Amino acid sequence: MRDLSQHLEYFALNTATIRQWPLERVIDACARRGIRAIAPWHEDVEKVGLARTKRLLRDANVGLVGYCRGGLFPVSSAAERATVSERNRRVLDYARELDAPCVVLVVGGLPGALQGAPASRDLIDARAQVRDGIASLLDYARTLDMPLAIEPLHPMYAADRACINTLEQALDLCDELDPEGDGALGVAVDCYHVWWDPRLDEQIARAGKKRLLGFHVCDWLVPTRDMLNDRGMMGDGVIDIARMRGVIEAAGFSGFIEVEIFSSADWWQREGDDVLDTCIARYKTVI
Amino acid sequence: MRDLSQHLEYFALNTATIRQWPLERVIDACARRGIRAIAPWHEDVEKVGLARTKRLLRDANVGLVGYCRGGLFPVSSAAERATVSERNRRVLDYARELDAPCVVLVVGGLPGALQGAPASRDLIDARAQVRDGIASLLDYARTLDMPLAIEPLHPMYAADRACINTLEQALDLCDELDPEGDGALGVAVDCYHVWWDPRLDEQIARAGKKRLLGFHVCDWLVPTRDMLNDRGMMGDGVIDIARMRGVIEAAGFSGFIEVEIFSSADWWQREGDDVLDTCIARYKTVI
Repeated sequence: MRDLSQHLEYFALNTATIRQWPLERVIDACARRGIRAIAPWHEDVEKVGLARTKRLLRDANVGLVGYCRGGLFPVSSAAERATVSERNRRVLDYARELDAPCVVLVVGGLPGALQGAPASRDLIDARAQVRDGIASLLDYARTLDMPLAIEPLHPMYAADRACINTLEQALDLCDELDPEGDGALGVAVDCYHVWWDPRLDEQIARAGKKRLLGFHVCDWLVPTRDMLNDRGMMGDGVIDIARMRGVIEAAGFSGFIEVEIFSSADWWQREGDDVLDTCIARYKTVI
Repeated sequence: MRDLSQHLEYFALNTATIRQWPLERVIDACARRGIRAIAPWHEDVEKVGLARTKRLLRDANVGLVGYCRGGLFPVSSAAERATVSERNRRVLDYARELDAPCVVLVVGGLPGALQGAPASRDLIDARAQVRDGIASLLDYARTLDMPLAIEPLHPMYAADRACINTLEQALDLCDELDPEGDGALGVAVDCYHVWWDPRLDEQIARAGKKRLLGFHVCDWLVPTRDMLNDRGMMGDGVIDIARMRGVIEAAGFSGFIEVEIFSSADWWQREGDDVLDTCIARYKTVI
């Protein structure tokens, strides 16, 4: 396993971890600490402006580890499908312009569910829509040379956020849509979503270096008080992150370790510098 | 598929669905409606007393669909292990005395986690403890001729309630500990816990009549506001229960359909008779 204790060479920050700060401030704070990569969110980049974001990153000498995010494929109508497709292409355009190494896909669940009004109970159809949506987006992604990283989400999000819920399922899709495995399609493994999976180790090995496009870390708190925004700082929960990192690195992964913590009642209430310093300290000692 | 619309022949009630009532009242209300079976909880039976519970059930002509529940195997010390083992044996003794067709096992998660103080991050060890715990309890269960039903719980309970999180994992355990499959060890399938699983249909078929010892229903609400006690009434959520029942009956299951709803903010606040009548109405029309 790589030694993380002495430097930040592999440290990356998902900017949602410090939602209390605007993107500009996150970039600046990372630069001052020698952090080399962030994962920004499309909505934030749109707010700042693409050209300005690009300039801020260049001036700060901060790159991207990934771009958040495409997906949300299942819909109820052709009109919605066109809107989703258009948005996803724009996300890829932005990611290309910012030289992101991949776009992360949160694939979506049942149509309408994220808005609180599920229009269907047909999970099989939702999964078929995801397959077709990724297939179509992949054609466009290849023209941009922009890899897509399917992120399996925890099964508790199957209804409203992502109906790809295990690494195995994500890899089955990769093998179906990209049988050559030339780097165009892979997975983002977030320990929060997959730590419980009895097939995890074997599927990480199956993924291998070519499919492993991202590794996200945070922790699972006991108890978890909110299904979306009560993720823990690494070391505060029950995930054996170091063990998982060992498995992932043994499979050939040598990329950044991206800290991504959604925490409305705790870390989003704290001073941003404290959050970032704590992330760094835990990165060096816990994972 | 069986026709449920005309009678309550296959309707069973998990008594936690009407937590606002004492066990005596649940039994009486079921009897008056022609419900043939309930799944009571050991703590409630202890409160009422074993002999009295037995008499109440006999007088009401209500039987058991299962007995809740054994398990919670992973522990941190030999002393705790002895306590757990003793409790599980007592649960089996009670179930035998009440002529339950099986005891449901909620296997437990990381030691201490259910009490809010996880003593370990070792999920692999917890799973090994579960295997050893079931193996040991199975020996005792065989002497009583009392089948054990492993209930895989949703992955969101992996830390604190059950580290058996897929039907496949439960069946792997069954095959390991009871290779003959003579009816001593099987599974309880609760649609709330497994509906998201991409391998569900194939694993239900694998289970077959011999391993399918229980089928529990409720619904997954969107949004879900509480991870434990915000389960929905059948039809109010996104689970295609009828489809799943079709798969289970095609696999040979012909037992009771057990309604089990934990709902602290909604159904536990209503009048018990309304809850029960709604369960019956939905049983006849939705599932």
